[in-house]
Amino acid sequence: MSAGAPVFDKLALVGLGLIGSSIARAAREFGAAREIAALDASPEVMARVRELGLADEASGDPAKALKGADLVILCVPVGASGDVAGKLAPFLEKGAVLSDVGSVKASVVAQVAPMTPEGVAFIPAHPLAGTEFSGPDAGFASLFRNRWCILTPQDGEDPARVARLAAFWTRFGARVESMTPQHHDLVLAVTSHLPHLIAYNIVRTADDLGEDTRSEVIKFSASGFRDFTRIAASDPVMWRDIFLNNREAVLEMLGRFNEDLSELQRMIRRGDGEGLFELFTRTRAIRRSIVEQGQDTDAADFGRGRS
Amino acid sequence: MSAGAPVFDKLALVGLGLIGSSIARAAREFGAAREIAALDASPEVMARVRELGLADEASGDPAKALKGADLVILCVPVGASGDVAGKLAPFLEKGAVLSDVGSVKASVVAQVAPMTPEGVAFIPAHPLAGTEFSGPDAGFASLFRNRWCILTPQDGEDPARVARLAAFWTRFGARVESMTPQHHDLVLAVTSHLPHLIAYNIVRTADDLGEDTRSEVIKFSASGFRDFTRIAASDPVMWRDIFLNNREAVLEMLGRFNEDLSELQRMIRRGDGEGLFELFTRTRAIRRSIVEQGQDTDAADFGRGRS
Repeated sequence: MSAGAPVFDKLALVGLGLIGSSIARAAREFGAAREIAALDASPEVMARVRELGLADEASGDPAKALKGADLVILCVPVGASGDVAGKLAPFLEKGAVLSDVGSVKASVVAQVAPMTPEGVAFIPAHPLAGTEFSGPDAGFASLFRNRWCILTPQDGEDPARVARLAAFWTRFGARVESMTPQHHDLVLAVTSHLPHLIAYNIVRTADDLGEDTRSEVIKFSASGFRDFTRIAASDPVMWRDIFLNNREAVLEMLGRFNEDLSELQRMIRRGDGEGLFELFTRTRAIRRSIVEQGQDTDAADFGRGRS
Repeated sequence: MSAGAPVFDKLALVGLGLIGSSIARAAREFGAAREIAALDASPEVMARVRELGLADEASGDPAKALKGADLVILCVPVGASGDVAGKLAPFLEKGAVLSDVGSVKASVVAQVAPMTPEGVAFIPAHPLAGTEFSGPDAGFASLFRNRWCILTPQDGEDPARVARLAAFWTRFGARVESMTPQHHDLVLAVTSHLPHLIAYNIVRTADDLGEDTRSEVIKFSASGFRDFTRIAASDPVMWRDIFLNNREAVLEMLGRFNEDLSELQRMIRRGDGEGLFELFTRTRAIRRSIVEQGQDTDAADFGRGRS
């Protein structure tokens, strides 16, 4: 499914977890870069990258990894972006595009932009893709297919460079959209950060119920709870950093959620059946829109358990 | 996959929605009853039952449906159980087992037990199975396979009758367990009712954000939100009745959830990275237990989107 000439000559990936290793696999499968270099702070991960053959250059030496790289993508927890960018800055080539995959954008811009050397273009990106698994073994080339990748280019960025980065993601089957970092952070607070926060919280509430009840919760989890546990199994470092770095938007959305929950609680306490019915009917319509727009399967129960 | 003689001679199903129609299909496929009768208050549903050929007796006449039935299962919203049981009481045969499939048990016992005629055994049941779809077309025979079915027999119930009802559910591939109605309602408040409440609430919060943001929420829902919308697309009448009929347990669990959420909110506001990391690591372990106990797939993202 490679389509045309490589979009970049040399891609350097920094951080080979789920997303970094998926980009490595996709770049090779779809011919998006002529050469791939991999760099990770963990010697274990570097060893695994070599075993899996994910990159052409996997020495672990930043000078070698970044030499000649015209695209460098940081695939590290958002809290580490500034540090990592600072360490790599001396090795970045003039004319290179520096990008990232972080789930928060304003904070990443604030961290990375000051570290970006003259002549290097920092174009932040966020592919809306992932699973509950982590590490270089968890990645796969089709992860980005039909998923969105949001770019948040800075004011005055050269449109040709942005278009080239967009072409890189399009090659993987992703759909690309541009917006401001602030708008990105607000939308993602609703669609991703708040849902994860709620899922983490409910799993924790269940975990605190004591040994007997906990084992029953696990046993009978298929009645709804298990969906939340999948989300709450996501990478802890990544999610700690997201909440610390998108604090305002998350707290704003959490405030709205809490107000709504208080109202729902009151409806149950008062036995307001009409109010509950009206609300539960309204939420059904949103699901239909999501399925209609191809954002989820309409197979019952995600197609789980059918045969 | 029929295994042995029918467990009951004539099964009468009252309510042919997702669960009722799944039982009809399963009873036929696995030979759990020699004859199947269907009864539904909706003429449209009765017509569809006849078109789909789900039952041997589908006249819509309660006298015909219940004549000779040694197992009658109420598959109606829990708020309607008492009413429906009262209407059917005159037609129930001596020696019959009356059961149900409601997601709440103490309230159903309180409604149905007083309506149960002398000589009829009311043995409540709750198969922990379902999808986000409703109606006679949504059912399928394998819905109960590897799922739990909880029985809450009343004190002094004949063990042989309980065993026979258990055998009926086992024939569908379900695993059967008995407990008190009160304990059932507490466990399900955690594993099912609270998760649904939270899912309904977050979808509503998103829906209230205004037109522009709403369309973006749908567009970018794959980043977490879409999982909640599936749960929040469940049948509104069924869920209204669950919350009204398991009020105490749901409000108790919601209280704990709220306390935990306040603490999490404070951790984010204060930037307590260590606390967040510790919490997110703990919730990961619960997911592992659920997958290990066969209660969910370990396919990344429920296997969605892979090919």
